Amino acid sequence: MATLVSDSILKNDASGPVPVSGGLGTDSYYNHSFFQKIAANGAKDMIDEAIAQKLDVKSLLSSSKTIRLADLGCAVGPNTFDAMQNIIDVIKVKCQTHLPTSPMPEFQVFFNDQPANDFNTLFKSIQPKREYFAAGVPGSFYGRLFPDSSLHVVYSSYALHWLSKVPEGLEDKNSPAWNKGRIHHASAAAEVRRAYAVQWANDLSNFLNARAREIVPGGIIVIVTHSIPDGMEYSELANGMMYNCMASILLDIARRGLISEEQVDAFNLPTYAAPPGEFVSVVENNECFNIVTMGESNPSPWLTDDVHVDMNEFVNHIRAAMEGMFNKHFARDIVNEMFERLEVRLSEISVEMESAYKDKIQAFYVLQRM
Amino acid sequence: MATLVSDSILKNDASGPVPVSGGLGTDSYYNHSFFQKIAANGAKDMIDEAIAQKLDVKSLLSSSKTIRLADLGCAVGPNTFDAMQNIIDVIKVKCQTHLPTSPMPEFQVFFNDQPANDFNTLFKSIQPKREYFAAGVPGSFYGRLFPDSSLHVVYSSYALHWLSKVPEGLEDKNSPAWNKGRIHHASAAAEVRRAYAVQWANDLSNFLNARAREIVPGGIIVIVTHSIPDGMEYSELANGMMYNCMASILLDIARRGLISEEQVDAFNLPTYAAPPGEFVSVVENNECFNIVTMGESNPSPWLTDDVHVDMNEFVNHIRAAMEGMFNKHFARDIVNEMFERLEVRLSEISVEMESAYKDKIQAFYVLQRM
Repeated sequence: MATLVSDSILKNDASGPVPVSGGLGTDSYYNHSFFQKIAANGAKDMIDEAIAQKLDVKSLLSSSKTIRLADLGCAVGPNTFDAMQNIIDVIKVKCQTHLPTSPMPEFQVFFNDQPANDFNTLFKSIQPKREYFAAGVPGSFYGRLFPDSSLHVVYSSYALHWLSKVPEGLEDKNSPAWNKGRIHHASAAAEVRRAYAVQWANDLSNFLNARAREIVPGGIIVIVTHSIPDGMEYSELANGMMYNCMASILLDIARRGLISEEQVDAFNLPTYAAPPGEFVSVVENNECFNIVTMGESNPSPWLTDDVHVDMNEFVNHIRAAMEGMFNKHFARDIVNEMFERLEVRLSEISVEMESAYKDKIQAFYVLQRM
Repeated sequence: MATLVSDSILKNDASGPVPVSGGLGTDSYYNHSFFQKIAANGAKDMIDEAIAQKLDVKSLLSSSKTIRLADLGCAVGPNTFDAMQNIIDVIKVKCQTHLPTSPMPEFQVFFNDQPANDFNTLFKSIQPKREYFAAGVPGSFYGRLFPDSSLHVVYSSYALHWLSKVPEGLEDKNSPAWNKGRIHHASAAAEVRRAYAVQWANDLSNFLNARAREIVPGGIIVIVTHSIPDGMEYSELANGMMYNCMASILLDIARRGLISEEQVDAFNLPTYAAPPGEFVSVVENNECFNIVTMGESNPSPWLTDDVHVDMNEFVNHIRAAMEGMFNKHFARDIVNEMFERLEVRLSEISVEMESAYKDKIQAFYVLQRM
């Protein structure tokens, strides 16, 4: 269940997602992003190897003495600092091997997230002693963020499943994609899932078009993200079960008259875990990047029959990542009740949750700019 | 008196200055930086002309398709946005004239201030539709902030008068620079003023060394800052009178036993308005920059015998810029009382304040990297 938690990010769109909880307090994302860290680490060795093999430092450093990295959807830390340092370490080893007599290049790291992200916390948490020049970049990574040909390595972890906005039709009574009584496409009509897939493909396409301009030839994009095997129903995943629980709790609250059913109908989580087939298809249509390597994995292999997630701790993590989105739509006390009851509900269905499909629900992709 | 107000900035040093008041509320710097804006505008035409004359866009764009600008000590806006757009406009005209058939370069603007600056407010205030890629850079501009040879134009307005720390000796009973009963060198012993001058020269030297690495040959630094004619006593300026008032109010409070006299002795404002002679001397010793142009002016020429500053509004401005520094040293209620009594005290000496020297208390310098 660990992979339900996600780094928030994205377009500052009224209908889009909302940043993770800021600050350094007990409810903050900063103190509740451990699951994201180990999830992202699952693919670390393969990503390191791809960068080491494919990044031609000699060629890159012929036109620039600085290597520029960006973490798109960095949230508030601390995971982003480890991820960036790790890539720098890989590049340094490569430089030492291939350019033993040249001075080490300088590194500049751009930390990107939406303008409403808590950059103050991010900036206060950056190690004062570090091997790179740091900058924060506010804005949606579905649009341009950097000058032409200015980046060498782009990294994005648990961010690209956030859509730039709620898919078309979900909140329209007259649309076949009307998502009545649900807050996600899990267990919904095929049209609803299709609307999510279309929006996601459109967003990824915009992402790749922007990066194609910004990344130098030979530069690399590393993406770690939620995934799902091609053809599988989202309701078979613990995430899907949880979203269904959330919807059912909200409908319960509506029945008590505290919110209207229309309010629930008008709320949809803008998140989509694309199967690898859909990912590859968008990259191929874009025609600017080669897929160097890709893979799927279970981000929480330590969760076995004998090891269980503490449900209270788990809901705290979910809450740190997603609460802002609910708060934008529902009153604070409704959101409080929803998360309190979610913990109870998830405990009740813990057998189903723990036996949910989780083998290949994380994917990573390493793309290289042609 | 308008020029007393200052953009905060700088080193995140315990003894150093503290950022301006964040957010967008009624007490915020964002809503109380009008004086800074018009002060900086005083030199605008001459700065524009110097950039237009000296920046060789043809040569700069031969090695980069992007023009990179930085505002060092940008605070939270909105002045920084106008300043950066203004420089971009000047460069665009130059490009249109000298490179009429080339595509317009892209622009990247780095907004720098200390890590404790309210970057969240800054980022939320940046126009979504803008002609440049924006990035925030947390850190002291007295050290390195950017990769080698990566900047074309650096701008810094009302920031370089902030020292990186309180000068040596001011708080040491056994030092000839012990600044008993004062919070600034105004009206103090010559040794105190000398300690300020030494610290300031050391800081500016570090600033220039860092920029010499970061700015491309032919690149430009624009500095607008507090100044004072060579040889003039700081107590002849309205600023000096105000600092003396602050010290006297604090000593009054100490006499009532609410704070100790030692607490007042241990507080010194790390701000220094250097005379042009001292500025030029540091630039010449640095040997990396030519002085393209420089000038001194009265930043508030509209303040005549018939036009007076509203003292309440004025103290609000001072407070937005300086309160944080006092709050770090004194309890909140002491600081409240100090600023409340300051308004009364300044009204009592309004004749002296308004007749204070103000002819050449702002200087601007345009330097070019050799």
